[in-house]
This record gives sequence, structure tokens and C-alpha cells, in this order.
Amino acid sequence: MVKAVAALGEVPPYTAPVDGPSYHMTPDEFRRVGAELVDWVARYWEGVEDLPVLSQVEPGWVRDQLPPHPPQTGEAWPEILADLDRVVVPGLTHWQSPNFFAYFPANVSGPSVLGELVSAGLGVQGMSWATSPAATELETHVLDWMLDLLGLPDRFRSGGRGGGVIQDSASSATLCALLAARERAGGAQRLADLRAYASVEAHSSVEKAARIAGLRPDQFRLVGVDGSRAMDPGALAAAMDDDAAGGGVPFFVVATAGTTSTTAFDPVAALAEPCRRHGAWLHVDAAMAGSAAVCPEFRFVNTGADVADSWCLNPHKWLFTNFDCDCFWVADRGPLVAALSILPEYLRNQATESGSVVDYRDWQIPLGRRFRALKLWFVIRHYGAEGLAHHVRRHVALAGEFADWVDRHSRFELAAPTRLNLVCFRHVDGDPASRRVLDAANASGRIHLTHTRVDDRLVLRLSVGQTWTERRHVEAACDLFDALA
Amino acid sequence: MVKAVAALGEVPPYTAPVDGPSYHMTPDEFRRVGAELVDWVARYWEGVEDLPVLSQVEPGWVRDQLPPHPPQTGEAWPEILADLDRVVVPGLTHWQSPNFFAYFPANVSGPSVLGELVSAGLGVQGMSWATSPAATELETHVLDWMLDLLGLPDRFRSGGRGGGVIQDSASSATLCALLAARERAGGAQRLADLRAYASVEAHSSVEKAARIAGLRPDQFRLVGVDGSRAMDPGALAAAMDDDAAGGGVPFFVVATAGTTSTTAFDPVAALAEPCRRHGAWLHVDAAMAGSAAVCPEFRFVNTGADVADSWCLNPHKWLFTNFDCDCFWVADRGPLVAALSILPEYLRNQATESGSVVDYRDWQIPLGRRFRALKLWFVIRHYGAEGLAHHVRRHVALAGEFADWVDRHSRFELAAPTRLNLVCFRHVDGDPASRRVLDAANASGRIHLTHTRVDDRLVLRLSVGQTWTERRHVEAACDLFDALA
Repeated sequence: MVKAVAALGEVPPYTAPVDGPSYHMTPDEFRRVGAELVDWVARYWEGVEDLPVLSQVEPGWVRDQLPPHPPQTGEAWPEILADLDRVVVPGLTHWQSPNFFAYFPANVSGPSVLGELVSAGLGVQGMSWATSPAATELETHVLDWMLDLLGLPDRFRSGGRGGGVIQDSASSATLCALLAARERAGGAQRLADLRAYASVEAHSSVEKAARIAGLRPDQFRLVGVDGSRAMDPGALAAAMDDDAAGGGVPFFVVATAGTTSTTAFDPVAALAEPCRRHGAWLHVDAAMAGSAAVCPEFRFVNTGADVADSWCLNPHKWLFTNFDCDCFWVADRGPLVAALSILPEYLRNQATESGSVVDYRDWQIPLGRRFRALKLWFVIRHYGAEGLAHHVRRHVALAGEFADWVDRHSRFELAAPTRLNLVCFRHVDGDPASRRVLDAANASGRIHLTHTRVDDRLVLRLSVGQTWTERRHVEAACDLFDALA
Repeated sequence: MVKAVAALGEVPPYTAPVDGPSYHMTPDEFRRVGAELVDWVARYWEGVEDLPVLSQVEPGWVRDQLPPHPPQTGEAWPEILADLDRVVVPGLTHWQSPNFFAYFPANVSGPSVLGELVSAGLGVQGMSWATSPAATELETHVLDWMLDLLGLPDRFRSGGRGGGVIQDSASSATLCALLAARERAGGAQRLADLRAYASVEAHSSVEKAARIAGLRPDQFRLVGVDGSRAMDPGALAAAMDDDAAGGGVPFFVVATAGTTSTTAFDPVAALAEPCRRHGAWLHVDAAMAGSAAVCPEFRFVNTGADVADSWCLNPHKWLFTNFDCDCFWVADRGPLVAALSILPEYLRNQATESGSVVDYRDWQIPLGRRFRALKLWFVIRHYGAEGLAHHVRRHVALAGEFADWVDRHSRFELAAPTRLNLVCFRHVDGDPASRRVLDAANASGRIHLTHTRVDDRLVLRLSVGQTWTERRHVEAACDLFDALA
């Protein structure tokens, strides 16, 4: 060290003893503390249904429980574990409570959590094929399996021009699709002329992706919807034609298969026609609803996949795989890789130069990536197609039962059709009454649900999809709403 | 369900039994399989040093071991576990082998892996404060702790205008910094005029971020370096002045504190002067080297942090925290949040509207996010400041010993100063000899190292930083190189 560092001048000569105490956790300690934490997680799952679903803490409470500065010396594990119960759990909104009906599901399962454990323990980087071939090949393989499981078309299969990759979220999938589309349309050189489209009901991540990619607000158009809140194909065609007539280049359309607000389905096949005419990339965001296709009877959610340029859905929402895990497929991987590939010297390797392998760093925003497919592989193998279908089917059936209850109730009414696992409803007395029910339900701690606006009226959303939600939890929700009606 | 769905028309009436078998893993099964997998990971760590470091499989081998289609019914855990050893392990390049000296470290530790387990098990979303206050507040708190641990300035502390957030990678931190800078400089409206800068030695992720954000190649300038491969401040100032004179708007500079190729340090303080003059945002990428600041004697790596607009480093590289975990701080969170904030109705909540909380979805590219801080909290508490410093110090000392060995060796020579844990060296007989040594070392399976180019000559990089690397592993590397010399 001494000689080598001396050349730098600013670094003091340094001669630390190389030997000395080790602060690492030994494998045996890992076994012992690991078993305790596995048990802690199992106990959390066993008890979570009795905890207030929405965290009851005030802003700042969690930080007030923590020492202002980090410890100089290491702490013992009993202290750390105790703080999980003392500080962390009260500060959680329990997404894994069977009484969680808010936003969308983000359901976990034992197999998935254990896959995450193994992925973390292996600690490999999957940025290139060469940095761990199994991380890449298992991902390609499992993404092909997912096409089988969901009944999605072969055009997305890795054997042809297409292929799949796991992104952290549908937000990133949308951004990658937009960047591929931008590349195909001429790249940054033509950026100022490009125009992107989604419906007014599309997820906020579409606008965010457009903004990140450098589109001005006037380059991203929100297209109107019909009475079912699905994008109006005529309105899309008119907007694209109008823009093209004005010198703009329509290059990217996001269709939503199951909107966040109400599970509305854009008519993907009809939207493909103006896309084809203008050479625009058609991306489908099936983040939540796409998982329903594990049940053959719900494959209407795949409508239009055979004409889409890209498709994504989140097993981390409704397929028992913990966040993050978004499956993203493209029919032609060329523009995606062209948009995102940069190969510096320090990443060059023979496998890459041979052209015979996939390097997933070129399919995503960051360079680094985990062994992403392991947990999804565990989930698919543990449940099998039949187990996954069974539980998704059950969620849909429970949502249907709740919708029927709402429909029969004198003080509540449905605010949108119940297509899968989301029920949109409101109080017949209007927004103030709906707001009162919403706030009281959440304050009770017994359930958690969120809201949206439909036709400018406040609407409660009851989303069924947590792993352990059973009929009795939905019935308890009915009882609560009945009392609050 | 029946009535609600009937309105849609296209969905067949469906009446599944809500009861029936459960395919879920029970908490007790989770305890049993979990204990097995904890033990499997411990055994992997105990045995990994004897495995070939670089995976020896050919492209396609891993996929050939797997069934072409997913299972219809679930499989038993003994089969799944057996495939970890049969298919996965041979397909890994072992980043957690103490004989791994390639690229950069991506070191894991027991505490971190257990933090990941708990984070996965809790399965909360941290996108908004309200969706789990503890996920947000612990992250803010631990990022403040990190400033203490590293001796970084108070301007990044959350109590003022600044603050920290965990990104997935330095790539994403750079992109977020660039987007904040673009926002401050006028946003997409002025995009065509903006100019960004980094040195020719900067990481490829800077160019990728510029491209993602919509900059044309001519809007991103690579600035020359001096003999130590540090960015030349005069060249930066000249490039910015030149662009400004031509009507361009210099808006963003990335300085690197420890380059990937050779651990060169850009003179951050000197680069700040032209940035100030042009109103450009100065981001510092300290991805690998920044962690060295846990040792007070290595705080030269922080030089210039007091004038930087943002700073990032990766505990997932060299601080015993498994990927992904990049710490990213800004001195002024205003432009970052302005660049990335979109608030649709379905995410509105009282805490957000009160303005009294942080919503980390507005500090990152995606919407969703895990309970990111938990594993870093576990690591800091397990090791304490003293344990972290001890092991980083030990890595630097081992790299120094290896550099001394190279310097004394008649057939090898140092190719760059050894500033921390990376030794750049080459064979005295030139590139073909260096290439032969590199390929033979990797083919041996006994170690793995990678290369770069310095002054257009092939250079071997030996990066010391894996958690369990001891003197004997470095000595074994010396023996191997000696035999190959």
C-alpha cells in the first residue's frame, strides 16, 4: 500500500493490521438469528389480522423512537429484534393483513419470501449473462413459462424476436417501452416532434414516464373515455391524425388492461389500428388485472395482446410474489436494447461479444440487477398453475359476493361494474356520506380501503387480493359498512 | 359477482366455490422450509470459496436443465431445493466467494440478508408516508445516520432543505439528479438547449441517464482528464463556457469520486466553480469509493461534498448490504420532488396534503417501493461504526499488500495508483501477455478478476471487497499470478 498510495500525495500512509477481530455474523449465528427471524415473520403473519390495518402513528413518531446517531459499537440481536415489535410494527400499514382492501393488492407468500432470502444470500449481479448465467437464463425461462400460465401470445416468447424481462415495477416497464418507442421513432434527434397518448384513466406512471423521457406536457395527450371508462378509439385516432397533420409524430400509446380506479379495459385491438397507421408503439399496462389470466375463464384481460408491441403485469400485485416483480414483454427486443445499451470496456466479455446471450442490463434503466427470477420460480413451482388459478379465482368470487351485497344494500350503490377483484361503490346520500364511511372505516383499524373519483363523485374502492383474505374478512367488512351506513 | 359482471357483457357469468383447498404455504411450513433455506444459504457461504468463481457453463446450459413448461400442479420442496444445487449453483458466478476480485464488490452479510427477509415478509409499500410510516421514517433516519458514519456535511440532512433516499443503484441516482437539474434549468421546455458533462472516465450510467432523459449525443460532453485520470477543471470550464457562448445552457455535471476503471478522483471542489458560474447542478458519483469514508483516515473521498448539489454511494457495493441499496442525498429536495411528483386522486391522503411528511415516490423513478432501509438499519446496528470501519480498512490494507507484491514482481507492474481497494496492474510484456494471464486466471476457477483499458493498454483490475476475503485469499491470488507470469 505504502508505495502505491504515496504517488497520490493526499492520502496519508496507512498501515492497519490486516488481522484482528471479525465483526461479521458467522454462518452459525446466521442460522440461529435466521431461524428467529423466520419465526418472527411467521408469527407476524399469524397475528397480522388482529392489528389495526392502517398505521395509527402521527408523523415523526417513528423517528422519535430512534437514537439520533448511529451506534459506535455493534448491538446485540435481542435489542434489534425487540425494536421490530416496539418501533417498526406500530408504524406499518399492514399490506399483508387479510383486512387490507386498499389501493391494489401487493400480496406475498412463503415461497416468494424464501426466494428473496436465497436471492439475497447468493448476492449475485445479473447485469450481464456472464456475471451469473443462471440469473439471466432462469429469468428468460420463467418469463416464457408465464406466457404459458397466462395464455399470452408466442410473439413475446424469447425464441423469436421478442422476449421478457423482470422490471421493478409497471412504472419502469412503461418507461422502458416509451424509450424503445422513442428509439424506433428516431430517438432524441426527433424528440421535439414526438407525441404520446394514454387515456384520462391511465395510471400516473405514464405521465411520469413521458416527463422523465423529456416530453413537454403538450407532447403527451390524455384521450377521452367512453361510459365504461375505456379509451375511445375514435378519439385516439382523431388525436393522432390531428397531431400528424400538425407536423407531430405519434409514436407511443399506452392502453390499460384494468385501470387503477375502476378496472376499466381499454379496447386494445381497436386502438391498434391508428397505432399501425401512424407507426406508433402500443404498450399495454395490465399491471394488476393481467394476473387474472392464470384463470382461463378470465382471459378476456389478454384481449389485444396479439397486436401489442409490449405488455406488462405485476406478480407483485396479485400473484403471491413480493415486490418488486413486474413481468415485461416486447414483441421485438431490437428497439429496447438499442435504446438502453451502452458497453464500456470494463463490462466487455466474450459471451456478450459472441452475440449468443442476453444481457439484461440493456433491457432496463439501471445497470445492476438482482437474481430477479428466483422468487417467481419458487412461487410457480410451489403453487403450480392450478394453485395460482384457485386463489385468484377465489378473490374474484369474494369481490363478486361483496358487490352483490352492495347492490342489495339500501344505503350503498355500485359505482362501476365489478370486472374482477375491485368493487367501486358509494353511499347513496352522496360524497359527504361516502367520505364519512371511508374515514370511519379506516379509523376503526378493522379494515383499510382507499378511494377514487368517478364522474366527479367520491367512490370507495374495495380491492380483494391479499393472500390470506377469506370470506369471513369480507363478511366482517360488510358488517362494518352496515354499521357505518 | 353475477349481477355486477353481467353489465360488462363480455365476461361469462362465473360462480366458483369460495371455499376449497388452500395451496398456500402455512406459517408452520414456512418455519420448516425457511429454516432449511437459512441453513442452505449458510452452507453456501461456508462452501463458496471452493467453487469455481466464474461460472463454467455454456450459453443455454441452464435452460436445458429446466422443463419447457410450468408445472400444472405444485411441486414438493425437496425437488425445488435440489434444483438449487443441480441447476442454479453451477450457473452462478460467485460474487460472494472470497476469491471474487472482479468488477467491484457487491458484498452481502448475514444482518443484511435477514433485513431483506423481514422486508419481504412484511411486504409493505413505502411509496407514500401513509402507506407505511415506518418505511419512510426509518429511511430518512438511517440516511441521516449515514451522514454521521461517513462524515458527510449537514447540508444533506433531512432537517434542512436537503435529505436522503435509497435508490436501487447509482445509475438511478444519477438519473434522478439529472432530472432534478433539468427541472431547475427550466424542464422539458428548454431541453434542446441543455448541456451535460462528465469525464471520459465517468461511469457508463451517466451517458445512459442523459440518453433516457432525452438529451441528444451532442448535448452530453465527455471532458478530458489529467494524468491521474481525474477530470480537468480547466477543460470543464472551457467546455461550459464554449457551450454557453453558442447558446447552450450548461445544466448538469457529474463528478466521480473513485472511477470504476482506476479509482480516480475528480477534483470536486475545483469543478464546482464553473458549475456555480453557469448555475449547473453538480452531482457526485461516489458509488464504490464513498463507503471508504466510514474510516476517518479515508475521508479524502468526501472532498467537495460541501459544494455538491447531490451525492451518492452504494452500501450494496462495499458496506455489507446486499443489492439493491444506493444512498442518494440532495442539498435541496425542491427540484427533485418537482421533477418527479405526480399526485393522482387514488394516492391522495391527509398526511400528504398536510405537507408534513415525505412521500418517497416523488424522489424516485418508479411509484412502488419496498421497505428499503430495514437491511441497512440491521447492518449498521450489527456492525456499529467500528465494525464497518474495521472491515473496510482491512480490504484497503489487503489491496495495498497486493499492490506492493505487484510492484516487487519482475513480470508485473502497477498501471495506476492504488488509492483504496482496487489494484490496476499489467504484464510487463504488454497486452497479449496481460490477456493471457487474465484469461488463464479466470479459466482456472480459482479467482475471478476483470479488466479495463488505461492509456489504451489492457489492464487487469483486482478489486478487494468481498465480505469474507482474507489475507490468505489475496496470497493465493499472488501465487496464481506468479505461476502464470
